[in-house]
Amino acid sequence: MIAPDVELGSHVSIPQPALVNLYGCRIGDHTKIGAFVEIQRGAVIGDYCKISSHTFVCEGVAIEDGVFVGHGVMFTNDLTPSAVNADGTLQTAADWAVIPTRVARRASIGSNATILAGVTIGEGALVGAGAVVTRDVPPHAVVAGVPAVVIGNRQELSTRAARRAERQMAQ
Amino acid sequence: MIAPDVELGSHVSIPQPALVNLYGCRIGDHTKIGAFVEIQRGAVIGDYCKISSHTFVCEGVAIEDGVFVGHGVMFTNDLTPSAVNADGTLQTAADWAVIPTRVARRASIGSNATILAGVTIGEGALVGAGAVVTRDVPPHAVVAGVPAVVIGNRQELSTRAARRAERQMAQ
Amino acid sequence: MIAPDVELGSHVSIPQPALVNLYGCRIGDHTKIGAFVEIQRGAVIGDYCKISSHTFVCEGVAIEDGVFVGHGVMFTNDLTPSAVNADGTLQTAADWAVIPTRVARRASIGSNATILAGVTIGEGALVGAGAVVTRDVPPHAVVAGVPAVVIGNRQELSTRAARRAERQMAQ
Repeated sequence: MIAPDVELGSHVSIPQPALVNLYGCRIGDHTKIGAFVEIQRGAVIGDYCKISSHTFVCEGVAIEDGVFVGHGVMFTNDLTPSAVNADGTLQTAADWAVIPTRVARRASIGSNATILAGVTIGEGALVGAGAVVTRDVPPHAVVAGVPAVVIGNRQELSTRAARRAERQMAQ
Repeated sequence: MIAPDVELGSHVSIPQPALVNLYGCRIGDHTKIGAFVEIQRGAVIGDYCKISSHTFVCEGVAIEDGVFVGHGVMFTNDLTPSAVNADGTLQTAADWAVIPTRVARRASIGSNATILAGVTIGEGALVGAGAVVTRDVPPHAVVAGVPAVVIGNRQELSTRAARRAERQMAQ
Repeated sequence: MIAPDVELGSHVSIPQPALVNLYGCRIGDHTKIGAFVEIQRGAVIGDYCKISSHTFVCEGVAIEDGVFVGHGVMFTNDLTPSAVNADGTLQTAADWAVIPTRVARRASIGSNATILAGVTIGEGALVGAGAVVTRDVPPHAVVAGVPAVVIGNRQELSTRAARRAERQMAQ
């Protein structure tokens, strides 16, 4: 379902509109959204992004232009979630404050990564698949693990990948 | 789909009934269930729970009252899963025994956590996002990591969060 | 949705056809596919497999006969994913090469596991729930953790499970 209050940019691609759950969010131009994705009220997605299948983007998350979000990525907006208040009544939006999270332009987040509330993922950074991000990720850093730690930078990774491709072509 | 054999309590909230897969399970009063959730036959969910999007609750899982289950949480009920028997035929329900799992009242389970079959998560405990729980979690403990280990208790965490909020309000 | 170009074997079981997203893939005989599963163009699934709910199988993945894939398992086919090219235009299939992944017969992959592009999971191996597999898994090995390391072999595990069952029956 794409709720009527979703602000969709131009040339947005959602191949399976019946298998997503988008409401109250803003999606930028030329962005692509996979199946089984939920994007909550107040989340903002930039232009030229890819939000892959099975991913959840909650209220309080801002994703800038050109960001890749893999499959099964979970954002969060609360560090001490509870179903109920001390008196046993169900918590509502009035019972907690959303902690904002920002993903800067051209960052990439690997599949099954978990992003804790309140972090900033820097421009061009790469979060490894399955990582749990508990603190800010510097621009262009590559992080991996649980909790995620810096293991390199994006430029090195691109150079290594390019060298490997060259070697393969030379064979 | 909500199968006709699901026992729904009163005031259950399932905003996207066409995007869930519930069958043969019991859901308590005032509980809220998100999109892309599957709850299998024989699973029991208490009152005043939140079961967030993309979560899977299998047969053998009992979730007590006031429990928060985050997004993308996977429960399991078998430690040595196989598709086929030694003779190559597809396994059926008759070929393995379900190992039960219990989540005690007011516990919270962070997003993308994985819960191995047979554990008990104690009352009021908090399982960190992305954790893999392989053994019992004591009541009111905070656990995190792969495998999950105790990193504190819920009361400390609440106190720290309250102090941080006070400092922010004082600024 | 099951796209018209999916090659379905005989006796395939897909209990919730409206809640899957299969296109351009091949599914072997007697295989069972759960809800909220996406299988992309070019992926090949063998006979007598179980692909559990919330799992994503991408282009470039070959799963042989008798394989168990748990819930929320994410395969990948790119080690340096990006939404956009250096010039800011959206990447298309022409902008990257798929790295193939193979899961050999009778292997089992636990729930919420993440499989990095390019690995081979050996015959009869067991990947623990929540593991992040970054390199090849030897046949019959049991691996777990982030990154996944060998913690035993499948035969030992079966023997221990059988002994435990015997002790329980003897009580």
